[in-house]
Amino acid sequence: MERHEIAIIGTGPAGLEAAITAKVRNKSVLLLGGKNLSTKIEKAHMIKNYLGLPEISGETMQNSFRTHLEKMEIEITEDRVNTVYAMGDYFAIQGHSGMYEASAVILACGMSAARHFPGELENLGRGVSYCATCDASLYKGKSAVVIGYSKKEEAEAEFLTEIADKVYYLPMYQEEAAVNDKIEVRAGEKPLAIEKKDQKVQLITESGFMEADGIFILRDNVAPSQLVPGLTIAQNQVTVDRGMKTNIPGLFACGDITGAPYQYIKAAGEGNVAALSAVKYLADIK
Amino acid sequence: MERHEIAIIGTGPAGLEAAITAKVRNKSVLLLGGKNLSTKIEKAHMIKNYLGLPEISGETMQNSFRTHLEKMEIEITEDRVNTVYAMGDYFAIQGHSGMYEASAVILACGMSAARHFPGELENLGRGVSYCATCDASLYKGKSAVVIGYSKKEEAEAEFLTEIADKVYYLPMYQEEAAVNDKIEVRAGEKPLAIEKKDQKVQLITESGFMEADGIFILRDNVAPSQLVPGLTIAQNQVTVDRGMKTNIPGLFACGDITGAPYQYIKAAGEGNVAALSAVKYLADIK
Repeated sequence: MERHEIAIIGTGPAGLEAAITAKVRNKSVLLLGGKNLSTKIEKAHMIKNYLGLPEISGETMQNSFRTHLEKMEIEITEDRVNTVYAMGDYFAIQGHSGMYEASAVILACGMSAARHFPGELENLGRGVSYCATCDASLYKGKSAVVIGYSKKEEAEAEFLTEIADKVYYLPMYQEEAAVNDKIEVRAGEKPLAIEKKDQKVQLITESGFMEADGIFILRDNVAPSQLVPGLTIAQNQVTVDRGMKTNIPGLFACGDITGAPYQYIKAAGEGNVAALSAVKYLADIK
Repeated sequence: MERHEIAIIGTGPAGLEAAITAKVRNKSVLLLGGKNLSTKIEKAHMIKNYLGLPEISGETMQNSFRTHLEKMEIEITEDRVNTVYAMGDYFAIQGHSGMYEASAVILACGMSAARHFPGELENLGRGVSYCATCDASLYKGKSAVVIGYSKKEEAEAEFLTEIADKVYYLPMYQEEAAVNDKIEVRAGEKPLAIEKKDQKVQLITESGFMEADGIFILRDNVAPSQLVPGLTIAQNQVTVDRGMKTNIPGLFACGDITGAPYQYIKAAGEGNVAALSAVKYLADIK
């Protein structure tokens, strides 16, 4: 497997700035995220305090960022990362679409606003999963509940129907779910908690409960505590020093994932620092 | 005297971003610095990694920053700051052209590359001064040596001739000094050390020594250790936490003055954080 020098997870301002700075320093960069860059920026009406881009709409800002990537010939590998494993002298990155390797990793995947359901973390790997692509094979002939936090999770639910016998889908967004007829959509159902019951898991909802062999919780962001085993977290934020170093050597974090203020230029500034710290780390381990 | 909510010292990316963010948060801002913004940026040939402004020349970047200030109706008060005094619930700021007051202060005045001369700090206030405007009156009928690190210091030397009897001027830059004929220019003279001798001070140079009642050392940046009495410094950098707080309540620092990497977007990101920390500080002391 190709081992990249620096893998960057996230395509908001922190990840993009980290990517262009790493590229300027001639590192091989794997930039993992969405081609639409940042949903948060895309929806921003007007940004007033990104120095050098006065009174800019989110859309125009996205275009400036995209132009910058193009000029630097940086490509986005469209994938979502489920888990990053620190292997000692490299990192193994498990994405929904594949595995990747890198000598250093920069986490720039934004803030996870989601709270966990009671019982969720306790049953992770014991009926609760964050990745249909990764774990679908465990549900051959079985039943699964999929909680999708954005429309793109519908494809994951549909993929599950190829293996599982029965798939329930709970859309956690406004738009109507458009899925194939193998899926039973339960719009309006509000999940409250997860309980293990014999070999099954139960999703407690406002209107009662649903029982299945597995529950897939598909959020936009994986909570940092789940993303990297062993990562030091405080109040759901990755703990970093002024060089954006985490407690794991070779692993850096920047942007909203490191905490407030949740501001674009702060995120970009941190991305720059994280990239240069990663460059220094690569030189040091050589 | 008008008391500003936030005084920002420095007009590089850190200071400018701090100013626009403070303005967005409706604070009264005093922005102290040069109307030419940043000499360092002005001279930059090409900047590749300021996200959103791809492959930009220093001059174009300056223009983007200037446009941003104009759109936000932020004015620069052209002055250089000599000392910031923490007075308890406010700060007194001594500039070359006047005194200012603010409830919170953000230091964004860049890195001081200059090393002190042996004997310089020991004799500060005892014959050594950093500000002709501030201390000229002490030299009525006396003699002074002025060491100027940039062409704009020539005006300070000329001002001294209105009061002192004899002024020597040592230009520390390439261009020829153009000063009035009351000033004795000693181009090429290289200062090495300062010594106190009876009531006089001696400037030891490579070619011998010069004796005078006072020595004015006019650098572009005052060393942070001299700028704010009581400020915690390590390796000539202001010590800050992730919120850009210094050891003095109400005093924040951002940009090159807080240390490497010396990068524009890092400086801007820190300016944003410093401004928001200052806004929070103002709310807390109310």
